[in-house]
Amino acid sequence: MEGNQGTAASPGIAIGQALIQERHEFQFVQKDIEEAESELEIKRFYQAIAEGKEDVKDLRHKVKKEVGAQESEIFTTHIQIMNDPEFHNLVEKIIREEQVTAEVAVQRVIRNFAAQFAEMEESYINARETDIKDIGDRILRLLQGMELDQSLIEDEVILVSYELTPSEIARLDTNRVMGIVLAEGSRTSHTAILARSLEIPTVVGLGAEVISQIGQGDELIVDGDDGLIFISPDEKTISNYKKRYQELELREKELEKYKDMKLERKDGRRVYVNANIGGTVDLGPMLARGADGIGLFRTEFLFLDRDDLPGEEEQFQIYKEVVEKVGDRPVVIRTVDIGSDKKPEYLEFPEEINPAMGYRGIRISLNNKDFFKTQLRAILRASKFGNVKIMYPMISAIEEVRNANSVLRQSRLELLEEDVEIGDPEIGIMIEVPSAVAMVRELAEEVDFLSIGTNDLVQYTLAVDRTNEKIKDQFTPYHPAILRMITRVAAAGREFDIPVAMCGEAAGDKLLIPFWLGIGIDQLSMSPVSILPAKETINKWLNRDKTELIQKVLQMPTVAEIQYYLSRRE
Amino acid sequence: MEGNQGTAASPGIAIGQALIQERHEFQFVQKDIEEAESELEIKRFYQAIAEGKEDVKDLRHKVKKEVGAQESEIFTTHIQIMNDPEFHNLVEKIIREEQVTAEVAVQRVIRNFAAQFAEMEESYINARETDIKDIGDRILRLLQGMELDQSLIEDEVILVSYELTPSEIARLDTNRVMGIVLAEGSRTSHTAILARSLEIPTVVGLGAEVISQIGQGDELIVDGDDGLIFISPDEKTISNYKKRYQELELREKELEKYKDMKLERKDGRRVYVNANIGGTVDLGPMLARGADGIGLFRTEFLFLDRDDLPGEEEQFQIYKEVVEKVGDRPVVIRTVDIGSDKKPEYLEFPEEINPAMGYRGIRISLNNKDFFKTQLRAILRASKFGNVKIMYPMISAIEEVRNANSVLRQSRLELLEEDVEIGDPEIGIMIEVPSAVAMVRELAEEVDFLSIGTNDLVQYTLAVDRTNEKIKDQFTPYHPAILRMITRVAAAGREFDIPVAMCGEAAGDKLLIPFWLGIGIDQLSMSPVSILPAKETINKWLNRDKTELIQKVLQMPTVAEIQYYLSRRE
Repeated sequence: MEGNQGTAASPGIAIGQALIQERHEFQFVQKDIEEAESELEIKRFYQAIAEGKEDVKDLRHKVKKEVGAQESEIFTTHIQIMNDPEFHNLVEKIIREEQVTAEVAVQRVIRNFAAQFAEMEESYINARETDIKDIGDRILRLLQGMELDQSLIEDEVILVSYELTPSEIARLDTNRVMGIVLAEGSRTSHTAILARSLEIPTVVGLGAEVISQIGQGDELIVDGDDGLIFISPDEKTISNYKKRYQELELREKELEKYKDMKLERKDGRRVYVNANIGGTVDLGPMLARGADGIGLFRTEFLFLDRDDLPGEEEQFQIYKEVVEKVGDRPVVIRTVDIGSDKKPEYLEFPEEINPAMGYRGIRISLNNKDFFKTQLRAILRASKFGNVKIMYPMISAIEEVRNANSVLRQSRLELLEEDVEIGDPEIGIMIEVPSAVAMVRELAEEVDFLSIGTNDLVQYTLAVDRTNEKIKDQFTPYHPAILRMITRVAAAGREFDIPVAMCGEAAGDKLLIPFWLGIGIDQLSMSPVSILPAKETINKWLNRDKTELIQKVLQMPTVAEIQYYLSRRE
Repeated sequence: MEGNQGTAASPGIAIGQALIQERHEFQFVQKDIEEAESELEIKRFYQAIAEGKEDVKDLRHKVKKEVGAQESEIFTTHIQIMNDPEFHNLVEKIIREEQVTAEVAVQRVIRNFAAQFAEMEESYINARETDIKDIGDRILRLLQGMELDQSLIEDEVILVSYELTPSEIARLDTNRVMGIVLAEGSRTSHTAILARSLEIPTVVGLGAEVISQIGQGDELIVDGDDGLIFISPDEKTISNYKKRYQELELREKELEKYKDMKLERKDGRRVYVNANIGGTVDLGPMLARGADGIGLFRTEFLFLDRDDLPGEEEQFQIYKEVVEKVGDRPVVIRTVDIGSDKKPEYLEFPEEINPAMGYRGIRISLNNKDFFKTQLRAILRASKFGNVKIMYPMISAIEEVRNANSVLRQSRLELLEEDVEIGDPEIGIMIEVPSAVAMVRELAEEVDFLSIGTNDLVQYTLAVDRTNEKIKDQFTPYHPAILRMITRVAAAGREFDIPVAMCGEAAGDKLLIPFWLGIGIDQLSMSPVSILPAKETINKWLNRDKTELIQKVLQMPTVAEIQYYLSRRE
């Protein structure tokens, strides 16, 4: 049986009954109001806005806790739009001048905005058409005193809809929704991003025609790996997919055996498989997968989604919680890498045409020494409670390391003078800017460890923005320039006898792991979900001879050759 | 005598009488109109828009011819704003609903827009408050049947104003306006950019109070180097500045002697000082300064500021004109590097968060082979008429060179089959993406020459957007990573016996020239205005021993050390 092809938005397989959620279209009587009533309508509008913002803040909090800080930022954009004075003025104007109800005015302005966003090539705020509609729906719902209703979802179902807004998907009961099937949407839509975070198999972009063929309660298969759905599938298709589903479950079980396995080279040197975490929420998943430590603790979440800087005590408590929860495992805390696509409102940012090459990371910390000191003091205090290391992001010059270390020294002295107990954390830097590779020998002399951030390193080295869909095929860690540069970094680590770690996405890449092991990278840090498969690959390659593989790869001049060669080495 | 400190916007010294240009404020009677008249007012508005667009197109054409293609793009933004449906709708709406004249409606909308732009951190179109006002003034002027009046400028004067719009400055008679003094503006405003291109000494941002102290006809000194102005200066100040002015003139005369000087090393190898040009308009200045050739012919101007792609014949004629005008001098034609901040409307561009690391340069050419072939065919045909070389921009991988050469081969075969006469141009690539440095030995095997683009190489290697004011101090070719990477490129050139040129701004840097010569870069290409001072420096260093200088610099780990050391080597 042939399936209906859509876009794979979130991996996995789901088999179940369709629950069709009709898109609620708001309908209002175009009621004319008296002039005196317009002020009342305007008041109603602002009340709905105020309530709406509270709702979105709750939602953001929920998503931040259950999904992640980055995903929760979607809703910060929503709040910003609800705060937009242009939006307020237009609604007020229409209510006043045309003497219509708040509902009519809001609907008109939102439609207009949505149409503009749909047309715009570059939007000055990072919002999409669906987000705008989401905001409009929310305000209209509040104006009409309606509640969002998900009570229909009683059983385990596959949710079928024309589109889902980020708010709707964030509120889903993940115990009941086994899969999602949508007519609209792309892989990079906020809805898709949230579906992946919630681990719900999802196919989007199927088109209205396919969706209209689905009846309430129909049996459905959602293949989120290949972007396929099957409506009322035949026996054979069902049994095929059931088999695949079972194989996936079996595979998960098989990987379990690596959970507590310590990986050691013949000479006794240990290979660490660490986790990248973005907040306390990731501690459960990483411990469940047997991570050897935290190779990258991103502290951005502490600084985003709020109205002011987090204080020393608040930061200290969170760092301490993380450090204590992982016991004696190492925890590499990266000082905050805000800027680029993460700009809290309480800091001033310049107008930036290319924010990824802008005011971010260590550049911000060194430009706001008090702010930097607050974070360093909090980390120093937490370092008393476990095996803490400090790491600076976005290092592009040796001067930055020296300046950062000078602020660290001051912080340490201050704390000692204040009789506060502190530990003695190791200091490391991210190697993610190409100039840091060119200067890696000098940098290695200044620090205790290096950690390669492959995502940014690839982005800057190839001049390929990793979020740019149009050139996404050119963003690859298999590029020979990347592999050669990383090899240089590993060599500098050996020369100066300091560990070289890796904490970009490529650290968990099955085909590249033999290469990383071969050049001597012994600390691989990745998202918790990648840890067990990576351990399996490392276990297989740990004591094989990789000399020839390394030599060959380093001589290959193209991505295709390298990829082909590595894919054949199993 | 102390001067008044402003912002140096365009260098040079001017001494002359103040001509105060009052800012014309439009005033209208808020005349109510009949409902029937509103359609008439709307028609008047669209007529003014149509005429305004024609005017701006003329202006754009003038600026493109007399100043440069890039500067003329300012006016493309103006046309885009005049075409903006949101702008049209708002004006129509106000005319209709409030029954006011087109003037009132335009003024209201423009004020609103300008206020929004002034507030906005990131504008989704690259326009500024002043540009918006410029557009508003233009439309209002046309609605009122007024002509822009510059007849007051009869004599050689220093123009004094609160602010000048890009249109006003573009229309100035540069033979009569010796200097410009403004209350508003910054170094990066469009007005300042145009003043620099027109080579008019300009100080901006002086504030309204300083401007109000200037009387019509007052004697003024404009010091565009230090951002100072002097109102009715005393004798001593005048004589000091006259002396400085004379010294500048003397210096210019002194440099004249390098114009026809051929620069050769002891072993007979010649050092070429070439020009970067952006169109035929730069041929005069480059020939006047005795450039040895064109090291970088940017072809972007041919593709911008128009509604469709330029055809083969049109391109051929311009390439041929350039090639013929420079005689037997080499001409390196770079295939088009659009994208990033240069996006013609007739091509589709993705939404890009970091356009400098996006869909641009060779990536666009290889994705639109017909378009690429058209340019290559035009260059091949022009190569019959002189010493033409072809250069590909934004090369980040060897595959791109191979693919580009394959399109070139096809183009060549086609032309031969069509019995069209062509030359046999050398093929080179820009080294401006960090991965190209890592792959430089393999790349050198594929091409006839390399040319280092320092601006982009610095930007990507340091992850510092060169247009970002906030981190502008970090954008520097003195970074040890940059000097080491360039040294590697030069070494690869020697190893594979192909020339290595340089065509970024650093090529003309007085302090760096000894380094470039020392590592064996024998072709330095720069803007025409830098050629004579560069020749002077090269002449001085050509046959000095630079071994120690190179060794020392390559060991230094910081920008400050390198800068200090080089500044003491004269």
